[in-house]
Amino acid sequence: MGSNTFRLVVFRYRRGGSFQLVDEIRDAVRLSAGAGPKGLRPEAVARAERAARLYAAFCRATGIEEVDALATSAVRDAANQRAVLRALGAGGALPVRVLSAEEEAWYGYLGAVNSTTLGDGHVIDLGGGSAQVTEVRGRRLQRSISRPLGAVRMTEAFLPDEKASRGQTKALRRHVAEAVADAGWIRPAGGRAAGIGGTIRTLAAMDQRRAGYPLDELHGYRLRREAVEALVGDMAALPARERSRLPGLKPDRADITLAGAIVVSELLGAIGADEVEVCAQGLREGVFYERFLAPADPPLVPDVRRQSVMNLVAAFRCDVPHSEHVAALATGLYDELARVGLQGVDRRERELLWAAGMLHDAGVLDYNDHHKHGHYLVLNAGLPGFGHAELALVALLVRGHRKALPTVEGYEDVLGPEDAGRLDRLAACLRVAEQLERGRARGVREVRAQAVDGVARLLVRAEDDPSVALWSAGLEAPAFERAFGRGLELAEA
Amino acid sequence: MGSNTFRLVVFRYRRGGSFQLVDEIRDAVRLSAGAGPKGLRPEAVARAERAARLYAAFCRATGIEEVDALATSAVRDAANQRAVLRALGAGGALPVRVLSAEEEAWYGYLGAVNSTTLGDGHVIDLGGGSAQVTEVRGRRLQRSISRPLGAVRMTEAFLPDEKASRGQTKALRRHVAEAVADAGWIRPAGGRAAGIGGTIRTLAAMDQRRAGYPLDELHGYRLRREAVEALVGDMAALPARERSRLPGLKPDRADITLAGAIVVSELLGAIGADEVEVCAQGLREGVFYERFLAPADPPLVPDVRRQSVMNLVAAFRCDVPHSEHVAALATGLYDELARVGLQGVDRRERELLWAAGMLHDAGVLDYNDHHKHGHYLVLNAGLPGFGHAELALVALLVRGHRKALPTVEGYEDVLGPEDAGRLDRLAACLRVAEQLERGRARGVREVRAQAVDGVARLLVRAEDDPSVALWSAGLEAPAFERAFGRGLELAEA
Repeated sequence: MGSNTFRLVVFRYRRGGSFQLVDEIRDAVRLSAGAGPKGLRPEAVARAERAARLYAAFCRATGIEEVDALATSAVRDAANQRAVLRALGAGGALPVRVLSAEEEAWYGYLGAVNSTTLGDGHVIDLGGGSAQVTEVRGRRLQRSISRPLGAVRMTEAFLPDEKASRGQTKALRRHVAEAVADAGWIRPAGGRAAGIGGTIRTLAAMDQRRAGYPLDELHGYRLRREAVEALVGDMAALPARERSRLPGLKPDRADITLAGAIVVSELLGAIGADEVEVCAQGLREGVFYERFLAPADPPLVPDVRRQSVMNLVAAFRCDVPHSEHVAALATGLYDELARVGLQGVDRRERELLWAAGMLHDAGVLDYNDHHKHGHYLVLNAGLPGFGHAELALVALLVRGHRKALPTVEGYEDVLGPEDAGRLDRLAACLRVAEQLERGRARGVREVRAQAVDGVARLLVRAEDDPSVALWSAGLEAPAFERAFGRGLELAEA
Repeated sequence: MGSNTFRLVVFRYRRGGSFQLVDEIRDAVRLSAGAGPKGLRPEAVARAERAARLYAAFCRATGIEEVDALATSAVRDAANQRAVLRALGAGGALPVRVLSAEEEAWYGYLGAVNSTTLGDGHVIDLGGGSAQVTEVRGRRLQRSISRPLGAVRMTEAFLPDEKASRGQTKALRRHVAEAVADAGWIRPAGGRAAGIGGTIRTLAAMDQRRAGYPLDELHGYRLRREAVEALVGDMAALPARERSRLPGLKPDRADITLAGAIVVSELLGAIGADEVEVCAQGLREGVFYERFLAPADPPLVPDVRRQSVMNLVAAFRCDVPHSEHVAALATGLYDELARVGLQGVDRRERELLWAAGMLHDAGVLDYNDHHKHGHYLVLNAGLPGFGHAELALVALLVRGHRKALPTVEGYEDVLGPEDAGRLDRLAACLRVAEQLERGRARGVREVRAQAVDGVARLLVRAEDDPSVALWSAGLEAPAFERAFGRGLELAEA
């Protein structure tokens, strides 16, 4: 129950296993709109009560077992908090917990470190009411501050008019700098920053639209501070009611995103970060991780990238024994080709191959063209902890595990110059592995490679007659040739 | 085990319930290539044996319970049939059944009438070895012929060279006309025709690519005879090895599709059809339907369109009680709005709304943007029995059941002039229904409409407190206004 937005998120999970977001309701309640010394306004509270009753009815009807109803700074700071809590409680159905500023920072931090690979750096969380800045060292929360710098509050305090004047935006910038000045540890030291909240997601969407970005994925997007400033310029040039013409800016955020963008930019400046990695998870997910990982303290996902892959494996109901066998054969082949000198070894690259092996049948719920469906689904579901280039490569490998060989076409803007060759090599390994396991019998146990006379010979050890596996895998000679520049021979070990 | 292609298809089914294709292996075996008076060639038989062994191993490994191994004209007509059958039997694992010409026509017919709405007309089935023409009346097979006019055979007999001369193609045309002349019932009577086989699918893909067709779906595509003739011209202008440059023509069909196209065109001419509806199902599916519908005789799916929807509901694991409730509320609202004169009643239109209601959560396996995933999945999986305009409308409704209102953008080439307004109206009904059932409690039992003073008032009868449902549905006023040009009010009945 945020200051701008209420959101109900529903997770399905097996403790210590995988989890999925399975439902969500979102309402632009604007709880803190017009709030003053007497507290939150009655109309705002009435809107909030309606949303709370919907959420309570929804939880009851869908048989949700565990409910955390959380309120943040709008309620925390409200003079009429008791009346507000009564309204939010939906007649006793939702026991609302008001998070302290420290808890708000803590849960945001948990959401960020459990969905990114951030080990050292900062988390910036900008909501409608407050902003949190958290320092992270070795994945642990070092210290944090919370300040009432939320996008709704700053809009009302500094940019209440249709048009924002230069003086007004300057005053807002000064206010942000002053608000964090007392925390001596906040200084322009640089390093990584992860960013949480609707304002940052909105700015990322706007920047992507402006650049014609090829992926439709916000989580993991690297938003440059310069880009934020360019968007500040675009928004400030328009009256509030016309700002939603800017691509990516939704009408219900059109008025508050300018102030929010200025706060983001100033906070990035304060910690000396040139860019912020967009994090689509936040305090809601942080609260969830506490349950999911209980009794771990702190509740940290051991391996975020592995968790992301296993979450999608479960969501898309991949055949786990088959997927694991293909992934093992593919990475085993990768290692063998490195051992005989046909390629180097790159731990990250090998992990992408493993991920693609696990997910190669992600789209099989409609068999025809399931490689294309898998590509689409992986790309859209996303893999928190993987960068966008890595995500694109995994999706392209899923697409290229059968039928046409994959190419980087359409993804040049997120991929680097080495990724075309990388895609060729990894696709060759995956396709050979899939063919060795085409009968889904898991009969092929091991593959050894030999590099002889311009040809790669793969010696296959199998539990039963491998002739079919050898013949099927041999059909991938063109993929192999393209990737490694040599012929492919298969024989029984 | 066809004359050109071997294909293993795996269906999962509940008898009398739904079914899905869950796996497929395809090999361009070219069993009949080079066949002569001594029978099929040893190299071809060796290729076929390898494929058969793979299929047998696959069936064993994946625990497939019922196997039908079928061979068609290449084996039927082979002088060395006994040796061929020994090779195809995969050491006794696959008891191959050689279909007679009549059975081949019968199963192709079953595939066609169970995946289209063809009631009266013809089915044309062109394989690598033979062609079948079947007359259908009242969904029943009336009569059929089978002739050795397959694409591989005709290529070898008439167009064996790199370049096809005018004299050669003319001779082939004459040969086709003569081959069917003895069947007096084949005459240019016009009417609907459904077309089966790899040649027809390939021609459709080529025609779609040439026209920049917006859907990536062959089944249900209307292929004009003129378009086939245009493709004949394109292919005949190129040497065989260069024909795969033509978009949509795969290399392993590049040489045989010219002869196949000429046969298709001549057969369409013989029955007087201007176009053929592409049918992606064929004899394999026909054999499957016999098992699926047993003991029905003839095995006819009672309602092809409904079956298609229920197959996708099962494949995408939609929440059936929720989907059925949304579909019922949406169609109930549709009827009410017709009753009070806000729209006409159109049985087909109402069925599309029902289908979209059943499938609106098809993409929910990844919750975020599941409306977009559902659109993608429905469009790609297809709905046999629905025309392409109908398929596009259902997919657009799935996409537009939440978030942004749908538009026909991108689909203008398959939709008609009335479809934009139709989409608006159906989307409004679906969105209001989804909101009335947003709590998934199935509490709303009925909706009655009143048209008063330029406003539509919906009176909602619910089992429990409907205030949340009323409020949620009221948020769809803009969708309603766009569709029906009037405001929306909701009240308890």
